This record gives sequence, C-alpha cells and structure tokens, in this order.
Amino acid sequence: MGVEERRQQLIGVALDLFSRRSPDEVSIDEIATAAGISRPLVYHYFPGKLSLYEAALKRASEDLANRFAEPQEGPLGARLLRVMRRFFDFVDEHGPGFAALMRGGPAVGSSATNALIDAVRQAAYEQMLSHLGIVEAPPRLELVVRSWISLAESTALIWLNGRRVPRAELEIQLVHDFAALAAVSAAYDEDMAALLKKMVKDEPTDGPLADLLGRLIALGS
Amino acid sequence: MGVEERRQQLIGVALDLFSRRSPDEVSIDEIATAAGISRPLVYHYFPGKLSLYEAALKRASEDLANRFAEPQEGPLGARLLRVMRRFFDFVDEHGPGFAALMRGGPAVGSSATNALIDAVRQAAYEQMLSHLGIVEAPPRLELVVRSWISLAESTALIWLNGRRVPRAELEIQLVHDFAALAAVSAAYDEDMAALLKKMVKDEPTDGPLADLLGRLIALGS
Repeated sequence: MGVEERRQQLIGVALDLFSRRSPDEVSIDEIATAAGISRPLVYHYFPGKLSLYEAALKRASEDLANRFAEPQEGPLGARLLRVMRRFFDFVDEHGPGFAALMRGGPAVGSSATNALIDAVRQAAYEQMLSHLGIVEAPPRLELVVRSWISLAESTALIWLNGRRVPRAELEIQLVHDFAALAAVSAAYDEDMAALLKKMVKDEPTDGPLADLLGRLIALGS
Repeated sequence: MGVEERRQQLIGVALDLFSRRSPDEVSIDEIATAAGISRPLVYHYFPGKLSLYEAALKRASEDLANRFAEPQEGPLGARLLRVMRRFFDFVDEHGPGFAALMRGGPAVGSSATNALIDAVRQAAYEQMLSHLGIVEAPPRLELVVRSWISLAESTALIWLNGRRVPRAELEIQLVHDFAALAAVSAAYDEDMAALLKKMVKDEPTDGPLADLLGRLIALGS
C-alpha cells in the first residue's frame, strides 16, 4: 500500500473503533491489530493517538456535513425531515464516539476537535439559511437556527442514552421543534413573523407542519 | 489568615479572573498579584492552575445551582421566568469564563470540570421536575426538560457572542420555548398532553404563557 492509501485505511479502522466505544478506551495496539499492522507502523503514519483521533474525527465531520446537503425543492418541512433522518443515521452509526465527543473530556476536548465540531455546526447553520432563502440572518433568526441545531445535538445525545424513545419520533419532533421555536420568536418580532409566514406558505396540508398544527388545535380545544 | 480562609480568598480571586477572561489567558502570576501574595504561596495552597480552576468552577457551579431554587408557589410560567432571570444574571457575571467552559477545550475540558457541569444540569433537571410535581419522569418528559436545559445553555452562549438581542427578551423566550417544546411533545403523546394541561391550568390570563398563546393565535389568523 502507498503512504496515503495506508493512512486512509488506518483512519477508517480508527474511526470504526472510535465510533463503537469511547475514544478513551481505544488503544493504539487495538487499532494496529484491527488494521493488521504493527504498533510501530501506526506511529510511522500518526505521531500519536490524538492525531489519529483528529484525522478520524475530520473524516466523520465531513461525512456528517455532507449529509446536511439537501436539494432545495419541495416543502421545507419534508426537506428538514430527510436531513434529520440522515443525522440520526449518522448518530446511530457513531453512537458511543459521538456521545464521548459531544460530552467533551480530556481525550477528546482538544482545540482541533472543538474546531471540527464548530465547522459542522456552521455547515448546518449555513444549510438552514440557504433553505430559508436568507443570506444575512438577523440576530433573532440566527438565534433560532443555532439554538435549534444545539437542540438537535442534545436530543440525539439523550436518545443515545438508553434509546427510550423511537428515533423516528424524534426526527419528526425536531422538525416540529424548529417550527415551534420559530413561532415563539415570530410571536414577538415582525421580521420573524414575516419569515415564518413565508416558511409555512408552501407546506402541504398533509405535511408534518400541518399535522402538528391540527394536533395543537385539537389539544387546545 | 488561616489556611482555609486563604484558600477561600484565592478561589474568589481566581473565580473573578476566570469569569472575566478565557481561563487559558489567566496565569498563576496574575492570580497571585490580584490576591496580593507571592506565586510560590499560591502553589502552597493549590498544586497548579487546573486545581485552582476546578475549585473556582466548583464554587461557581454551586452558586448557579442555588439560583435555580425557587419557591413552589404561584403560576409555573412566572416561577420559570424568575429562574431564567437569575440564570442570565449568572451568565452576565461570568460571561467569558462561562463561554470558555461550555465551549470546552484543553484548559477546561477535564473529567472534573465535566462532572461539575453535569451536576449543575442535573440540579436544573431535578428542580424542573419538582416544580412540575413529577418524581419519576417518563422518557418523553425527561427529553423535553433535558433538551430545554441545553437550549437555555446554547441561548445564553449565543447571547454572549455580541449580545445582539436584549437579555430580558431571551429570558421570557426561554419560558415560552419550554411551553412550545412541551406542546410539540404533547401533540403526539397522551401523557405529555395530560401534563401540559396540568401545567397551564393555573396560568393567569395576564401571564407569559397566555400572552404567547394570544400572539400565536393572532399570528395564525
């Protein structure tokens, strides 16, 4: 194998191990064994576990950012739901590693890992704005979108801890949560109200937002 | 000064400095100068910056947890709003240190600091349940409360980054957000619907929840 090919193989093996267990618990020996090479050879490609972890995290974060990409066609609620499904696919595939990363700690809380997390959050934020047709977000919209992204992260983390609510329910709940947070903001801000009206204008009567609205009205009556 | 008194004084001085700037940027020399003692004397009381940081964080986290305490009297929305005000007071007082801590990183992401953050989150969670009159939370309620706590954290962090929305607006918005997240969950779950009805039953017609509801109805018409 060539140098780059070997590096990529090692990253793949490491990512698989770091995804299945907390990175604290994964040793270089184990990575070497899984890759079918010697421990010194691992160190030939990566100076230490942290650099290999960072490389694996970089690949995972690019993978996740790619899953946010969604054609700008059709109603917004359905688009968002497809992205949430792919987000939960990712969380499902990388569960223990995702949980360890998002909970921070000495093995995973380096400046480089935090920069990667921030880059993914920023990619998610920019995707959302582009689906909303917004270039420069006013402060209240930025707050709604960014705080909803953090809500999606925490919802996924809470789900991983015991999986006591079906993930399909949470995927749609997060779409609804976005609408709910936007509605709360819109109730007190004219610009947000105008944006919300634009958002729901093209929602079909059998879509997730109309369904929520119908149920909320039933709940209130 | 006695040993314990001196330790407590140092913790206070350190907490003040760690609150005003990112802990990365605060040196032991600076803490010594601010406390009016020599650098070696600081090391006499604390083996290093991390142990002093952890002691300061422990004091701050106890302070924050105490601010969650709210008498279980009167409507829930008003109680929650008072707690949100005290939470933003805390965030305001400790801004840069709070931001650095919550964003993680090498200087602040130790297991001990993460355990302190988790303890504060757990205190917030238990306070919420006790105000809701719940001992054992079903999974969907746990999800709503815990994810809302994380929403409060991220809202505060986004606010600190430029303070472009008045904090009073965000304090009440978070009360509304809790109601909104609970309503989304209630729309699809009978137990949550029963709980929501109990929650809003005692809300006054001039309270924050009734105000939101009125505005949402106006928005929809």
